[in-house]
Amino acid sequence: MNNHGMDVAIIEAKSGVENGDGGPFGAVVIHNGIIVGKGHNEVVLHNDPTAHAEIVAIRRACAYLGRFDLSDCELYTTCEPCPMCFAAVQWAGIKKVYYGCNRDDAAQIGFDDKLIYDILNGNNTTDGPEMINCCRDESFKIFEMWYNKNDKVQY
Amino acid sequence: MNNHGMDVAIIEAKSGVENGDGGPFGAVVIHNGIIVGKGHNEVVLHNDPTAHAEIVAIRRACAYLGRFDLSDCELYTTCEPCPMCFAAVQWAGIKKVYYGCNRDDAAQIGFDDKLIYDILNGNNTTDGPEMINCCRDESFKIFEMWYNKNDKVQY
Repeated sequence: MNNHGMDVAIIEAKSGVENGDGGPFGAVVIHNGIIVGKGHNEVVLHNDPTAHAEIVAIRRACAYLGRFDLSDCELYTTCEPCPMCFAAVQWAGIKKVYYGCNRDDAAQIGFDDKLIYDILNGNNTTDGPEMINCCRDESFKIFEMWYNKNDKVQY
Repeated sequence: MNNHGMDVAIIEAKSGVENGDGGPFGAVVIHNGIIVGKGHNEVVLHNDPTAHAEIVAIRRACAYLGRFDLSDCELYTTCEPCPMCFAAVQWAGIKKVYYGCNRDDAAQIGFDDKLIYDILNGNNTTDGPEMINCCRDESFKIFEMWYNKNDKVQY
């Protein structure tokens, strides 16, 4: 564990609150003991609902390292990642996550991920967005086009 | 349903494949019958593992409309959103999603979300990232700081 990682994540979270940038969350990506990406929640600052601290830190770390794979990095975040950020951690290939508060702490201050977990788990089929399937054949043609492409980059 | 929405999502997906920008996915956000955000997977183009088509389209729609709430918008996507994108749809407040291919189609061409679903569901506790809790008290202090702030923007 890199104590510096969590210290900086907390400083990020604090500065985000002070500036009114969004929710009280900060995150840091560490590679070989060095911070390669850091950020805090910027949902309000940038009118971007995807700008959670972890997403911001992951995007910056990837930009800094020049690759979309962070499997040799660790994430430090002041709160257990929400399902969006957890999936982003997985897509980035990160193998170790240090987190401060948990999902129940977050729910206490108004950031409740329970509905998202419940819908993804199939435990709530009524309160999520209406999901309507259409145009599968046309969409699948693009899948085949990609699959048959010789120079595609797999990720 | 807005046929134009899915047509443009498919055109986006196709152009992404042709340019080698990333996976074969496109998405469009419609507001009052008009496209306010569109995009395709740009993971490879920008070295950004979070640049899935839906995330790109949502971010652009929010930038165009100047707000982080898309509860009066619809999403058209050529594939059922992965857990990251589904959670982003929820955070954006989108109430209706039209999708082409489904998660099984995506798995067929190598984009398998099953592990992410399984970890989020608690059905796989061994193959995900190691999750280590630490510094909860220091992190929670920032939660309280935000909670007690009078001019905070709730979202």
